[in-house]
Amino acid sequence: MQNISDMQLDESLQLEQEKGVITIWLNRPESRNAMSVKMVESIQQIFTAIENDTSIRAVIFRGKAGHFCAGGDIKDMANVRAEAMAAGNSKPYADFNRKFGAMIEQVDQAPQTVIAVLEGAVLGGGFGLACVSDIAICLENAKFGLPETGLGIIPAQIAPFVVKRVGLTQARRLALLGMKFDGNTALNIGVVHEVAEDQAELELLLNSTIEHILLTAPHASRVTKALLHRSLNEPLEQLLDEAALQFAQAVGSDEGMEGTMAFIQKRKPKWADLD
Amino acid sequence: MQNISDMQLDESLQLEQEKGVITIWLNRPESRNAMSVKMVESIQQIFTAIENDTSIRAVIFRGKAGHFCAGGDIKDMANVRAEAMAAGNSKPYADFNRKFGAMIEQVDQAPQTVIAVLEGAVLGGGFGLACVSDIAICLENAKFGLPETGLGIIPAQIAPFVVKRVGLTQARRLALLGMKFDGNTALNIGVVHEVAEDQAELELLLNSTIEHILLTAPHASRVTKALLHRSLNEPLEQLLDEAALQFAQAVGSDEGMEGTMAFIQKRKPKWADLD
Amino acid sequence: MQNISDMQLDESLQLEQEKGVITIWLNRPESRNAMSVKMVESIQQIFTAIENDTSIRAVIFRGKAGHFCAGGDIKDMANVRAEAMAAGNSKPYADFNRKFGAMIEQVDQAPQTVIAVLEGAVLGGGFGLACVSDIAICLENAKFGLPETGLGIIPAQIAPFVVKRVGLTQARRLALLGMKFDGNTALNIGVVHEVAEDQAELELLLNSTIEHILLTAPHASRVTKALLHRSLNEPLEQLLDEAALQFAQAVGSDEGMEGTMAFIQKRKPKWADLD
Repeated sequence: MQNISDMQLDESLQLEQEKGVITIWLNRPESRNAMSVKMVESIQQIFTAIENDTSIRAVIFRGKAGHFCAGGDIKDMANVRAEAMAAGNSKPYADFNRKFGAMIEQVDQAPQTVIAVLEGAVLGGGFGLACVSDIAICLENAKFGLPETGLGIIPAQIAPFVVKRVGLTQARRLALLGMKFDGNTALNIGVVHEVAEDQAELELLLNSTIEHILLTAPHASRVTKALLHRSLNEPLEQLLDEAALQFAQAVGSDEGMEGTMAFIQKRKPKWADLD
Repeated sequence: MQNISDMQLDESLQLEQEKGVITIWLNRPESRNAMSVKMVESIQQIFTAIENDTSIRAVIFRGKAGHFCAGGDIKDMANVRAEAMAAGNSKPYADFNRKFGAMIEQVDQAPQTVIAVLEGAVLGGGFGLACVSDIAICLENAKFGLPETGLGIIPAQIAPFVVKRVGLTQARRLALLGMKFDGNTALNIGVVHEVAEDQAELELLLNSTIEHILLTAPHASRVTKALLHRSLNEPLEQLLDEAALQFAQAVGSDEGMEGTMAFIQKRKPKWADLD
Repeated sequence: MQNISDMQLDESLQLEQEKGVITIWLNRPESRNAMSVKMVESIQQIFTAIENDTSIRAVIFRGKAGHFCAGGDIKDMANVRAEAMAAGNSKPYADFNRKFGAMIEQVDQAPQTVIAVLEGAVLGGGFGLACVSDIAICLENAKFGLPETGLGIIPAQIAPFVVKRVGLTQARRLALLGMKFDGNTALNIGVVHEVAEDQAELELLLNSTIEHILLTAPHASRVTKALLHRSLNEPLEQLLDEAALQFAQAVGSDEGMEGTMAFIQKRKPKWADLD
């Protein structure tokens, strides 16, 4: 297993690793975990390092000190402004912005199952990151929103992921009104899957989610997640042909045989036991 | 009208035909109507036979003995395993799997209006079949789910239809957690359209659905269903151009004229009267 | 600012203009505001005239005398029938139908934020128009539906916009059953965003929506709306690259600088003040 603790990461992130689960804590409490360039780069570094490590089954994103992430970092923007003035053009702004989209896309396509635990501010870029999780759970009083248009800017790297998450009908209203909304609305429009009334319930939901993930076969889960993504972009016939080959591989694999045996013997499959 | 009772079908299906409505009963109670190769082939045979028969307005799928369908058939898998061993490769698994996808796609695109009546187990392949119905109604205590990843395999032929049904956001969670869920959750995430508390209410919902279908014009319904499907895959301008020609045809057709007359005369159109 | 009151419009529409908001009243109470060819053409004329006018921030569609719009106009259809008989072919029907689709597409893509206020009949073409609004609010007792298939015709120009609005799963049932449904169902399946119990609440929701729109930057809102639409049709990488350039432009623009200043100074941005 990749030892995540060996990585040289910026202190704006804290990592925990327990059995096959990594928790990435966004850790800039002074700015409600606003997403800095260093955080963006560190997140990409982590996902690149674990990409082929099937011992890592799930990645959890959450924020320190009661907030998930309040959006982009204002100090970084000041640095970029200086760069742009020195360069005499706006390319530094575009590069800065594009980086965030690259990170969010990498998380979206990550082979691991990604969980977002959402509290406090879930705004702008933080909202975008939440939108690429496989499972999102939140506190009822979390504050979601896309405030960009109210600030004279645009949710540039986030917009496509918001549409993919909640559909065009809801995305139009969210982005064009720039309003904030709570966890129950986030549930109703499909941003999150479950809402907790308090911290204790949130931890219960998280633990239950992890338990279910550990019961699913590592390789089969990866293949399934990729199939779901591909079904949005590829012609159906071709996708079903390839999926049939993947099915044949899965059935004949160690996982497929262990899964069948465990089912017949009414026991947990071996991959569920990480001790 | 095609006489369905003349067909040589496997006993794993039972057919009923009343007026313009065919009911396909999945009938393997000993295995909670697990989908066998013979069932798959028989379903395709039925839909091929009725494809151009506009006297058949609706097809209902339901299961005998309190279950809809618990997924793929384990005995069939054993046969396929023997074939694969004899062949020395995994092609038989892929062919077996692909067949199910071909059937589900044919049902998805069927010109008739397809109703799924969901009780008990609605799992794996059964869940996939439910996902291609035009109208799905269920009992509150039905059990839905995609258990594949927990068994070390993948929902290969089903995944694209699940995404089409409930969107990527919900599909990710369902497939990656492999959890079971009940009828109310199925309603909330968009698998089904209506939930009944008990058998009596389920039959009422089914009868009301059939009544509404019989009030719609047979040819217009077929053209409309095809248009809805096409709108996911074809460029908008071209589709609207063709749709305008289809509108012109519909208005000038017997159905279009009868529909207008019936509306003006405040009576049911002739197509609603099947006695 | 474009002076809308100078336009030569058919009396089937009434326009109001207040600050940056235009209200288009559908005004044919005798037919529950059924959509005539003249209305279709006038709506297109308005949107073409205001297309590049960033002083106009929002367009509201609503209907006079307690109804939104009951669908296509029957008298027009009689005229088209005469044309078709004179021509000896059905082309006049197709042209008539296609015009409606062109209008609805123009509204869908309008750079302004479009609000639909829905009361009474929201049927057929009226339903289609509601489906391309950015924000839809309705009375609880409004009556929605796609009655076409019950009349022997098809929702030709509407079908793709209904699928885009509510997804294929719901669109299949609505179009193939031809049933009517109320505001709460419209909310649950995603046609509308908010439901009011009575007229007073409806006006409150409308006012609150307008207030939020006026707080968002005019140019940023336009760019954002276009991005959301494009994300359904364009490859992700390319879209994110272009979005990054648009972000850079927005940050360096007057709007971007005013937005940042207003945020820091904890005041409303200038664009919010239309007096």
